[in-house]
Amino acid sequence: MSDIRIDRDAWGWVQGPTLMLHAAKARRNLKAMADKAARLGLRLRPHFKTHQSQVVGDWFRAAGVTGITVSSIEMAQYFAAHGWDDITIAFPVNVRAMAALNDLASRVSLGLLVSTPAAVEALEAGLRHPVRTWIEVDTGDGRSGLRWDDSGGIAALARRLHGHGMLPLAGMLGHAGHTYRSRGRAAVQAAHTAELGRLRQAFGAMTDATAPGLLLSTGDTPACSLCEDYEGASEIRPGNFIFYDLQQQQIGSCDFEQISVAMACPVVALYPDRGEAVIHGGGVHFAKDVLHDDTDGPLYGRVVLPRHDGWSPPVEGCILKGLSQEHGVLRLSSSLLTQLRVGDLVGILPVHSCMTADLMTRLTLADVGMELPPLRMMKAY
Amino acid sequence: MSDIRIDRDAWGWVQGPTLMLHAAKARRNLKAMADKAARLGLRLRPHFKTHQSQVVGDWFRAAGVTGITVSSIEMAQYFAAHGWDDITIAFPVNVRAMAALNDLASRVSLGLLVSTPAAVEALEAGLRHPVRTWIEVDTGDGRSGLRWDDSGGIAALARRLHGHGMLPLAGMLGHAGHTYRSRGRAAVQAAHTAELGRLRQAFGAMTDATAPGLLLSTGDTPACSLCEDYEGASEIRPGNFIFYDLQQQQIGSCDFEQISVAMACPVVALYPDRGEAVIHGGGVHFAKDVLHDDTDGPLYGRVVLPRHDGWSPPVEGCILKGLSQEHGVLRLSSSLLTQLRVGDLVGILPVHSCMTADLMTRLTLADVGMELPPLRMMKAY
Repeated sequence: MSDIRIDRDAWGWVQGPTLMLHAAKARRNLKAMADKAARLGLRLRPHFKTHQSQVVGDWFRAAGVTGITVSSIEMAQYFAAHGWDDITIAFPVNVRAMAALNDLASRVSLGLLVSTPAAVEALEAGLRHPVRTWIEVDTGDGRSGLRWDDSGGIAALARRLHGHGMLPLAGMLGHAGHTYRSRGRAAVQAAHTAELGRLRQAFGAMTDATAPGLLLSTGDTPACSLCEDYEGASEIRPGNFIFYDLQQQQIGSCDFEQISVAMACPVVALYPDRGEAVIHGGGVHFAKDVLHDDTDGPLYGRVVLPRHDGWSPPVEGCILKGLSQEHGVLRLSSSLLTQLRVGDLVGILPVHSCMTADLMTRLTLADVGMELPPLRMMKAY
Repeated sequence: MSDIRIDRDAWGWVQGPTLMLHAAKARRNLKAMADKAARLGLRLRPHFKTHQSQVVGDWFRAAGVTGITVSSIEMAQYFAAHGWDDITIAFPVNVRAMAALNDLASRVSLGLLVSTPAAVEALEAGLRHPVRTWIEVDTGDGRSGLRWDDSGGIAALARRLHGHGMLPLAGMLGHAGHTYRSRGRAAVQAAHTAELGRLRQAFGAMTDATAPGLLLSTGDTPACSLCEDYEGASEIRPGNFIFYDLQQQQIGSCDFEQISVAMACPVVALYPDRGEAVIHGGGVHFAKDVLHDDTDGPLYGRVVLPRHDGWSPPVEGCILKGLSQEHGVLRLSSSLLTQLRVGDLVGILPVHSCMTADLMTRLTLADVGMELPPLRMMKAY
């Protein structure tokens, strides 16, 4: 049974939509993943696109992480400026930004993704400092990379890069998209097994064409949270697990208790007849990722209540049912609705924490019981 | 027939995802709306949440606009700092931010929305400078405001505010949501007629309880673009029309030619076998508003091609079909696919320009044929 007591002192300094970070939960998530990678003999190269924060990055460093993954050149620049010197940009290289790539490559050990001869030619023409290259493979997700079964294309690209003076081949990299469409441990395990099998097949085509010693990089948050078998893999690159979110909870990667971010939102109107309330908190705060729940229908978040040391579990039957630019419409249980007042705060667990954090650009600590300056993320500089 | 010539000089300085603004189109959109408001005897109080830019704001000022609408306290502060002194915050008042409201109310003529006695009580307790109040009415959209047919509630709130020393009643304000779900002029007209009728009914309940001389504020971009009948209304508050977007084009509010923003995105990979390409341009650039087109299916944008003085019409059969955080997947016609190279730029007309502009925070002029410093929007300060 949810605890629906309203604590009006908790988060009392908050005025508008504010992304609250439960630091202890985030650090527990981090430790669990670092321990697991160590136990499985995998290098953890976490994706920093989720938190985009130098302070959270330092928590990873303290846990022994030395190499990271980012999703854009800007993000590589931000973390390079904060002392990270081994960075993979896990995105098809943007050859229009050659000056920025050269600047990065002159300062850090930079990893870039290639999957086309055109990209290799552009890098050969423009790069003045060596970078490590990773052949990007599409294991069936249909987004980017060479298809896993394109053995000829993989072998040709591998031969071109192997031992290359400026673009030495580091290995092969895949992104698992299928686990995100799975529900429950068994389904995630099945998707992971299939994808890792495809990736190993592609990896075989690469090593057959070159030499041993190349690396295989994989690792999405669902599989890294739930699976144990990483035979053949060298490193994993999960990112979302530092925060988790409702999507990951639905997949089964985490439980509600592990979600380490919640948006504080002021209640601006109550509509008891409709069983609803309106909060300040809309698409510009949450993004518009929607989750379809069998019981609660489509939803954009779940309601938790502020506490001095964090927040309550989700309040049963209380969801963020609609979003416009700044408005959020909550569907509330009558027991919560009768206690809430205009001007109260609620917390909202987000559907997709990466998108929400990217929008908010600041993280405010929720578990220290006092107001501290927010942690500025990349886009707040 | 689309002109699918690739002009590699156009937008040549662009490196990563960049929101391009066609200033001449935006100013034509502005002039058309200002002329129409003048012709119909309506005050134009444009919503500035779409552009969030002081420079674009100045174009409105030059067109005779003196009062504006915003969607948050932060936006009111931004435009107040740039000389706007008559501002309505068209959002249920957030009574947790009383210090900011007092600061604003001490400097500008501030309009606030109320629909509950609780909000009135909080304002009475906390405000030290007078503000104009608007009774917010829900004309059936189910978002915020008193229901249009709650004559008793409207009359009671109106009597409480009429002649109030600190919270004098300015009038009634409605937001039309139904026109956004309409397709074509006749359907928008029907939705507009129904909503304006409901609003007039609510307005009658208010004026019966008070006195003549109060104002009726309405106006969404679809109806303001397509409808002529505003009997009973005093002012209109459209916002999106300055940029328009694919959603408005689908509704019928504009044609493709009037859309004044396009995202420049580098092509990072080509997949001729799939008929697809990948661009740098994802959910963190576009937001994730999706449009369902009868011919092209679900889409997140339409492809245009860079030109020295702007961009081409949409290229037939070419859409942004998928988005992840930084990736966009394009479905392309074979005629475009054979001409594109990795490293080229495409333009993408967005589905929802308000959300896209909010994310991008900068507007780069597309129709001057040269690189100029981007116009910084509110969140870039």
